[in-house]
Amino acid sequence: MKETYIKEIERPEFKNPLLIEGLPGMGMVGRITARFLIKELGAKRFAELYSPHFPYYVLVNKKGSVRLVRAEFFFWKNPTAERDIIFLTGDSQAQTIEGQYDVADKILEFAAGLGVKVIITIGGYRKEADEAPKVVAVSTSQALLENALQGKAIASPAGNPIVGTAGLLLGLSRFRKIDALCLLGETGGYLQDPVAAKGVLQVLQTMLKLQIDLKNLDAQIEKSGEIAGRMREIEERRERYAQKMRKTEEKRITYIS
Amino acid sequence: MKETYIKEIERPEFKNPLLIEGLPGMGMVGRITARFLIKELGAKRFAELYSPHFPYYVLVNKKGSVRLVRAEFFFWKNPTAERDIIFLTGDSQAQTIEGQYDVADKILEFAAGLGVKVIITIGGYRKEADEAPKVVAVSTSQALLENALQGKAIASPAGNPIVGTAGLLLGLSRFRKIDALCLLGETGGYLQDPVAAKGVLQVLQTMLKLQIDLKNLDAQIEKSGEIAGRMREIEERRERYAQKMRKTEEKRITYIS
Amino acid sequence: MKETYIKEIERPEFKNPLLIEGLPGMGMVGRITARFLIKELGAKRFAELYSPHFPYYVLVNKKGSVRLVRAEFFFWKNPTAERDIIFLTGDSQAQTIEGQYDVADKILEFAAGLGVKVIITIGGYRKEADEAPKVVAVSTSQALLENALQGKAIASPAGNPIVGTAGLLLGLSRFRKIDALCLLGETGGYLQDPVAAKGVLQVLQTMLKLQIDLKNLDAQIEKSGEIAGRMREIEERRERYAQKMRKTEEKRITYIS
Amino acid sequence: MKETYIKEIERPEFKNPLLIEGLPGMGMVGRITARFLIKELGAKRFAELYSPHFPYYVLVNKKGSVRLVRAEFFFWKNPTAERDIIFLTGDSQAQTIEGQYDVADKILEFAAGLGVKVIITIGGYRKEADEAPKVVAVSTSQALLENALQGKAIASPAGNPIVGTAGLLLGLSRFRKIDALCLLGETGGYLQDPVAAKGVLQVLQTMLKLQIDLKNLDAQIEKSGEIAGRMREIEERRERYAQKMRKTEEKRITYIS
Repeated sequence: MKETYIKEIERPEFKNPLLIEGLPGMGMVGRITARFLIKELGAKRFAELYSPHFPYYVLVNKKGSVRLVRAEFFFWKNPTAERDIIFLTGDSQAQTIEGQYDVADKILEFAAGLGVKVIITIGGYRKEADEAPKVVAVSTSQALLENALQGKAIASPAGNPIVGTAGLLLGLSRFRKIDALCLLGETGGYLQDPVAAKGVLQVLQTMLKLQIDLKNLDAQIEKSGEIAGRMREIEERRERYAQKMRKTEEKRITYIS
Repeated sequence: MKETYIKEIERPEFKNPLLIEGLPGMGMVGRITARFLIKELGAKRFAELYSPHFPYYVLVNKKGSVRLVRAEFFFWKNPTAERDIIFLTGDSQAQTIEGQYDVADKILEFAAGLGVKVIITIGGYRKEADEAPKVVAVSTSQALLENALQGKAIASPAGNPIVGTAGLLLGLSRFRKIDALCLLGETGGYLQDPVAAKGVLQVLQTMLKLQIDLKNLDAQIEKSGEIAGRMREIEERRERYAQKMRKTEEKRITYIS
Repeated sequence: MKETYIKEIERPEFKNPLLIEGLPGMGMVGRITARFLIKELGAKRFAELYSPHFPYYVLVNKKGSVRLVRAEFFFWKNPTAERDIIFLTGDSQAQTIEGQYDVADKILEFAAGLGVKVIITIGGYRKEADEAPKVVAVSTSQALLENALQGKAIASPAGNPIVGTAGLLLGLSRFRKIDALCLLGETGGYLQDPVAAKGVLQVLQTMLKLQIDLKNLDAQIEKSGEIAGRMREIEERRERYAQKMRKTEEKRITYIS
Repeated sequence: MKETYIKEIERPEFKNPLLIEGLPGMGMVGRITARFLIKELGAKRFAELYSPHFPYYVLVNKKGSVRLVRAEFFFWKNPTAERDIIFLTGDSQAQTIEGQYDVADKILEFAAGLGVKVIITIGGYRKEADEAPKVVAVSTSQALLENALQGKAIASPAGNPIVGTAGLLLGLSRFRKIDALCLLGETGGYLQDPVAAKGVLQVLQTMLKLQIDLKNLDAQIEKSGEIAGRMREIEERRERYAQKMRKTEEKRITYIS
């Protein structure tokens, strides 16, 4: 495999489709969000994306078979609202700089071919303070951004970098006449952060008028809360210890110099 | 050399050929297994694979000449059973992500051209416990997997990654209508692990009804056992020491904080 | 995006244009210089350069929108002198070896197409002594070099490497029949060094007979001076401490050996 | 510059030409050897090799101008013997795996086009013992190897890797019907090792019946000998100290465990 490649399982007809991207990243916020929606809405897989820029291993599945690292496209035929939703999630992001640009571009090319005019990408955002996590929004379209802010997202400060596919899809969408919004759930960056994903889901629910029950995330939240609690404890002890050491060191430097 | 390149020395006619791949990897299980079979069966070299993704050095041979890092294809004309066997082994795997995908793809393209419909890849599997090493099997074909389980392999738990050529050949075989099985010998990961290779050879012997004498591996096993024993000793001492240090450190942290 | 790509917003007519390049680098000397001139002269943006070799993130701007990492071309219609000036500045340089060559080449190809016959690149130069920063000049053209030396730049000692786009543009300009000069402002290498940029601006002012007021840099210089002062203090304390440690260590070595 | 590129300054007619390659590497043995021969024989530059796989900087020369990192081809019209000699030396080797293969291949393609049937590559060889440095030879041709052994080179033990262009040229020469020999001067690996180069020059002198005076290397040898002496002293002190530390540590481990 020399090139990033999209294998279509079927090609459905879409009504004004919107693409929601949630690949692995900080706190796994994008992936948890996308997978939750796919499961709750019963979205159906219709295409797979393979790339020589993905990690070079295969994953064993439950039946003792294996598959390449990949991303997958799902669709949900919206029975009431005016637009169908396409989801993109997967195992990994591209592993090299040039690969990141290439994969993002292939996703956009495919999406444009499906008639997608709006993309929402989802990721994590490093949270500094210990408050309830907010959802940060940026968009290439003022209308989309306002839509997100009405859904309780907050605007991002200027100068922030948004790393990886969630960012590049916005940056590259300009060349395709696609509007794009990025929703970043604030997270402490722990391995799995379903609380941050829940925040993003609340914004999406309002924006897209989705009928889903977010309580189904609560078991996952409880479990990850326990893990995060233990990790925080260890970190805090380490930090207190490091501070003591720094103070001791500083005294010593003052003494010696 | 811009591209991975296969140089054919001869092009034999094959009867329903099966490819066994054993390139260097964890514990050198694949390479030891493939080389043992090639030697015992008297398989004959018929093609060489070169790649700009292999390490950029040459190796000196016994006659004072040199050759590029490469992989080699051998074949064995099976006098009794219904299928000939092709072997692939070599000096190295590709060194970059994109190179790994490219080399695996070139191998599959070549194998498909030779009429190969079944591939068995061999590798090592990180063993946790101190028990006798098992052989772990995964396959893209349920029939092949059951065949391996009858040969005393065990099924892999879900979620495991299989890294490198042994894994990618399975993942990419789907695009070529080739069935593939991966046999992973459990190993402590030491440089050379012929015990793990012996386990894989026992499974292969049963599966392929091969008449070979595994006793010829015993000298190699004895030698590597001595080395591994010494390495284990050193590691255990280190581990005991590190544990003491950690306990001392933890006491100190508790005291200071 | 598979290839470095220049998006033209408009294509002005130029009178004997000269290109000044100032991308991020040591002490940000090039970027500060180019941006100062663009602002003071009121230069106008007319093209954008995107590349899969740039970092794979997007940057959030003040309106809550985002854009890809990019470089930008500006032009200034010189009302009096005989030549217009084109400026190139941006967010980043290419992140891989091959990417550096590719981006530099694309810049030259575009410049040549605009009729550019002379390029001035700007960068930082590691300053050893604690004296007032000088401006070091090298050029592919003896006439350009002398012009810079008349503007109070000094010649570079032989053997120095000039890393990145500022250097490669000179090296590659030979293949395009473009003359090129590189002006390097001596800098301690701190994050932002407007003092070094001021030195370069003085040389440029003389060379190009520009009517600009360098006092507008002074606020920036004052601010960065405070930061640099604090950094220097910390470094000096560290250095004194490290020296003491080295002496103690040396005594110990002498004692033990 | 997307591709490795050879710029020909002139295209001389050659009489059965032989190529000697000496690019930078361990102890700079190849580069010192090639440059010494070029100077002593008065060889003339006729082609330059540029590559996007070389480091991305330019070098300042004595006239205050700059040039890209490059390799250069020189030729010497042999007035007496039956063959002309082409030399290849330069600033650097390719910096990536794929780049190494690409540059070596471009060199061979160019050499083949000039009618080269024999290549001698020169490098350094890690010396273990403290004896007088030998010259190690490997070759793709038995006749060439014997020729080198008659010139007092010794054969290489099997299994050794020869890294970089000096090795790859031998490995890849097979595909071009070119015979190749590699001469490796034993070196402690110091930055510049003209003693190792002298050893290689003695072998070349005998093999190629060259009339050159190796005494011209002696000043360089004396200077580098002083530097090496000082480095060795420092290293020995460090090693003695590290040994003491290891012994102390081992005692402690035994005590604790």
